[in-house]
Amino acid sequence: MTNLIKNIAVLTSGGDAPGMNACIRAVVRTAIFNNIGVYGAIQGYEGLINNNLKKLDSRSVSGIIHLGGTILKTARSLEFKTDEGMQKAYNNLKANEIDALVVIGGDGTFKGAKEFSEKFGIKVIGIPGTIDNDLYGTDFTIGYDTALNTTIEAIDKIRDTADSHDRLFFIEVMGRDSGCIALRSAICTGAEAVLLPERDTTIEELVQELVAGSAAKKNSRIVIVAEGNKLGSAYEVSKMVKYRVQNYDPKVTVLGHLQRGGSPSAFDRILAGRLGFSAVNELLKGSTNCMVGLSGNNIIVTQLNEALTQHTFKLENDLMEMKEILSI
Amino acid sequence: MTNLIKNIAVLTSGGDAPGMNACIRAVVRTAIFNNIGVYGAIQGYEGLINNNLKKLDSRSVSGIIHLGGTILKTARSLEFKTDEGMQKAYNNLKANEIDALVVIGGDGTFKGAKEFSEKFGIKVIGIPGTIDNDLYGTDFTIGYDTALNTTIEAIDKIRDTADSHDRLFFIEVMGRDSGCIALRSAICTGAEAVLLPERDTTIEELVQELVAGSAAKKNSRIVIVAEGNKLGSAYEVSKMVKYRVQNYDPKVTVLGHLQRGGSPSAFDRILAGRLGFSAVNELLKGSTNCMVGLSGNNIIVTQLNEALTQHTFKLENDLMEMKEILSI
Amino acid sequence: MTNLIKNIAVLTSGGDAPGMNACIRAVVRTAIFNNIGVYGAIQGYEGLINNNLKKLDSRSVSGIIHLGGTILKTARSLEFKTDEGMQKAYNNLKANEIDALVVIGGDGTFKGAKEFSEKFGIKVIGIPGTIDNDLYGTDFTIGYDTALNTTIEAIDKIRDTADSHDRLFFIEVMGRDSGCIALRSAICTGAEAVLLPERDTTIEELVQELVAGSAAKKNSRIVIVAEGNKLGSAYEVSKMVKYRVQNYDPKVTVLGHLQRGGSPSAFDRILAGRLGFSAVNELLKGSTNCMVGLSGNNIIVTQLNEALTQHTFKLENDLMEMKEILSI
Amino acid sequence: MTNLIKNIAVLTSGGDAPGMNACIRAVVRTAIFNNIGVYGAIQGYEGLINNNLKKLDSRSVSGIIHLGGTILKTARSLEFKTDEGMQKAYNNLKANEIDALVVIGGDGTFKGAKEFSEKFGIKVIGIPGTIDNDLYGTDFTIGYDTALNTTIEAIDKIRDTADSHDRLFFIEVMGRDSGCIALRSAICTGAEAVLLPERDTTIEELVQELVAGSAAKKNSRIVIVAEGNKLGSAYEVSKMVKYRVQNYDPKVTVLGHLQRGGSPSAFDRILAGRLGFSAVNELLKGSTNCMVGLSGNNIIVTQLNEALTQHTFKLENDLMEMKEILSI
Repeated sequence: MTNLIKNIAVLTSGGDAPGMNACIRAVVRTAIFNNIGVYGAIQGYEGLINNNLKKLDSRSVSGIIHLGGTILKTARSLEFKTDEGMQKAYNNLKANEIDALVVIGGDGTFKGAKEFSEKFGIKVIGIPGTIDNDLYGTDFTIGYDTALNTTIEAIDKIRDTADSHDRLFFIEVMGRDSGCIALRSAICTGAEAVLLPERDTTIEELVQELVAGSAAKKNSRIVIVAEGNKLGSAYEVSKMVKYRVQNYDPKVTVLGHLQRGGSPSAFDRILAGRLGFSAVNELLKGSTNCMVGLSGNNIIVTQLNEALTQHTFKLENDLMEMKEILSI
Repeated sequence: MTNLIKNIAVLTSGGDAPGMNACIRAVVRTAIFNNIGVYGAIQGYEGLINNNLKKLDSRSVSGIIHLGGTILKTARSLEFKTDEGMQKAYNNLKANEIDALVVIGGDGTFKGAKEFSEKFGIKVIGIPGTIDNDLYGTDFTIGYDTALNTTIEAIDKIRDTADSHDRLFFIEVMGRDSGCIALRSAICTGAEAVLLPERDTTIEELVQELVAGSAAKKNSRIVIVAEGNKLGSAYEVSKMVKYRVQNYDPKVTVLGHLQRGGSPSAFDRILAGRLGFSAVNELLKGSTNCMVGLSGNNIIVTQLNEALTQHTFKLENDLMEMKEILSI
Repeated sequence: MTNLIKNIAVLTSGGDAPGMNACIRAVVRTAIFNNIGVYGAIQGYEGLINNNLKKLDSRSVSGIIHLGGTILKTARSLEFKTDEGMQKAYNNLKANEIDALVVIGGDGTFKGAKEFSEKFGIKVIGIPGTIDNDLYGTDFTIGYDTALNTTIEAIDKIRDTADSHDRLFFIEVMGRDSGCIALRSAICTGAEAVLLPERDTTIEELVQELVAGSAAKKNSRIVIVAEGNKLGSAYEVSKMVKYRVQNYDPKVTVLGHLQRGGSPSAFDRILAGRLGFSAVNELLKGSTNCMVGLSGNNIIVTQLNEALTQHTFKLENDLMEMKEILSI
Repeated sequence: MTNLIKNIAVLTSGGDAPGMNACIRAVVRTAIFNNIGVYGAIQGYEGLINNNLKKLDSRSVSGIIHLGGTILKTARSLEFKTDEGMQKAYNNLKANEIDALVVIGGDGTFKGAKEFSEKFGIKVIGIPGTIDNDLYGTDFTIGYDTALNTTIEAIDKIRDTADSHDRLFFIEVMGRDSGCIALRSAICTGAEAVLLPERDTTIEELVQELVAGSAAKKNSRIVIVAEGNKLGSAYEVSKMVKYRVQNYDPKVTVLGHLQRGGSPSAFDRILAGRLGFSAVNELLKGSTNCMVGLSGNNIIVTQLNEALTQHTFKLENDLMEMKEILSI
């Protein structure tokens, strides 16, 4: 098959995730290796709309593989959801002789790409990049492994002081809809309890679990609170618990965007490299309207249509059961 | 002078701080080297009152120099503030032939030690251990350097994502009465603004500073919020700012006890070693009712009476001025 | 099926790997949850031979999930390769009413376990724990992910100084027979060249690659040297290069056992938990003479016979190709 | 006094050190705040000679405070030691209306600056930046604290595996002439022995120390080897020890330039900020041919003449003695 692609644009959209830079680097260098020109769109789809496109060569992605964040910046674009916005973006791509788009991001990013592709016939490939790991079509998303490592390093530090004080700690972690980070970080740190978006826990159940932990002579008690759980924020839950068990003096940490930053882990750098490399190779093969992902140790390709309509995440029930047993 | 001390007890009290274990190790080994027996009191003064004393030998402090927290655990003891509590503690010391006490902690710890010493004639030496660096008689307290490093690592990570998004971040750091960690971490991370307990800032001044930063084309804006500042918590301040500048979408991180944990830095390990070593040597010289501290590169000794009555901390005005100039 | 197992022993053998403690914890707690007693054998098979067995309860594995190394210590046992050694080990197991063995380690460990099981009818389950990731029957071994992260953190630091100096660096990483760590760390850090045990490179090829990198205006040049490559140690290779390109002033770092230590990554903690949990569950199902492993996101079971006779590792050719393209 | 300085140049020379970027940022912003223009000379004195001077504004030093290495690059310039080289440098300074020079580096850097200043009347201020901490006129040099932290983190990791194996490790750390890093890192990690440039140890003394450690039932034995010690490299010493005590199987790590990299610690960022800030303020006051340094918690100024002729470093004997006692 002949390579009919002259130039591509690459962009990062939605929440940033560690490893996005490593992925940009892989996209750029694989394209250049195949004699395709590359533009970086600044601030996601906004860059397409505003013609904020930067020509990238091999050296322009030197020294970024280990950096958190994204050198292309990211944003959520309201304008790209409108016909006018999409038209502007299309015009700018045409003006720059850009034939295809590689978008790195999550669900929202892919949705925009799919519509854009269907409407204007631009080829698009999606690369899953989000710390939430809540996408269909890949075992892991870029940034998730780093975010987990960052989270458990923080919790390990809180454990130091928890053990010295026999105290109770509530740690709020990211996850509006997905308890992935919360559950896995609870397992990784031996947390006593975890509140998840996917599973309801009553305040009474939580208190009972904590009291049982005290009876088992545990030194310290740590509760991981996913943002999206039903009981409330870490502050709110801590107050509810204190009201019921007065001798606890609970302390709260809210990790927030700390979890998005940091240098990407080896796992994320390899994943980012492989996905960026494969995305360009898929374009060369003529693929479009699909995403690349990791399944086991292999790269797989899923149509965006399928990726966006399938249920994206089932809480890993075996891990849930294991968590209960390992924290006895 | 003859060494009339048969046994000593060592304890950690108040908030735990990284480096306390390195200090315990130094006290234990220096005492044993000088043929003095050592007991560790578990949970600070509570351990004295409840006779929860553990005989320590050289090997019992092996493998702890790099650990956060304190193997002796710590607590705030209400009972030790009563005559009965102190009497119990004294009786237990006598029963175990313990002649002197080395206490590692902050102001409250030293106050208790001083009263106890004056009432019962037990020799005491204080070692400054607190992440707040708010004690008279030493340039640095054990744990402060590590807490600062932990704080700036966290802020560096948030900067990654801030830069990718042109966003505004509020980061709450420790410091009820002392802005030490807040000011220094602001300087270390090039934060745009800092709210301190020692200096009033109005919400209008803060907003003005942030808007000026935007005008200067800064990528991202980070505001460090010390717990004890007058405007409110990081959440409260972020809401006040958002109310005034609607296009900001501020995000909040509350570091909390994360700042207390972690492996002590080289600086804190050396400081902990020197102060623990010196505390025992002071006892050998016959000193009592004093604290050891660091002045420049030298160990100094200050009477507890003086340490507790002097003003403890003046915000470093030269650093304050420098902060303004360096964040232009 | 009835659970006929009264007690099990768990041991770590061969080189230690981060995550072994998390795995021990999982084995112990899963067993206790199923009313099986657990003994820890100290120093691997030596502990069986010398009856150095420690009864473990739930609390005895508290606070170890995040620690590097192994609380059970590890050793290579020559005596266990003799009939007398195995007989002693068997006698001690019988005397302690131990019916099954969980062994955490690599090839050598599994080989000993298999022979022991065949000779004495003791049930054994193997868990792959080695930083080298060179075992058949699992995508990843416990410790590999952490070792990779440790390695790339070290190389990232060297890159700082490399960039400031336009200098050439040789970094020796672990891998006598397997280039896994070398190849992946080279990809993760954008190294200019990598010397692997599985692939011959001549000194002329290496020099050519480095000179081409200079021509491409790269700031710095880093060469990753796996221990087992054919050209020689990092020191030796650096001298050969300097002899050929005199204006380079190459510097050498030998990471050595640094790569074995450190707190296990999230990936390794989850993997260790799942494998330890599954190993005990396999014993409950009546399995023996097999190993548990990870395939994609699933736990799989492989007979030790198969695991030990299959070729263990094929250098990932797609990663090799990708490495060349991404470092243009 | 009137400020007669129109422009200054800043450069980094000699070995790079973490914190140099934070210092460059402080110099640039303090100058700009005082309406002085700033040029950065690329690759130290080479940049002056080759007119490789880059105009720096406030934004050009954004986002560098936390980066290791130096954005201005560094080099050792042979040409600057010649009259011709100095003359070229002077001509370029004049052509760019540069009246003063701020140089960040070590002894060699200061020596060049002093001669240049004396010969051509250019104002110079030196800032001590080197990981070796071997300069007169300051308690600490920029980069030393970070290098120490990097070193002890590495040794802590090796300790993990050392403890699991009862093994002997030799770790080579930087220090040709100065044992600062070696001695302090030995104290910080509880190493069993340390070989220093400043103190002769025979191989027999070393072996005796290690054997005594074994008798004291220590789990593991770590020996820190400063590059410049008299017995030889870590490899050589390990072979000498193995020859004498055969049952040891010593392992070697050579940290090398790993110690130069990494994000600067809080201590180094504050120090870099204060010294850069003070250097410009000294120029404003009319000072020249001097260096700024830290004494206790204060900034002090020392004439380069004095700094270069005084003995620079005395091994801290109290720390040496303390090391012996604390590793019992």
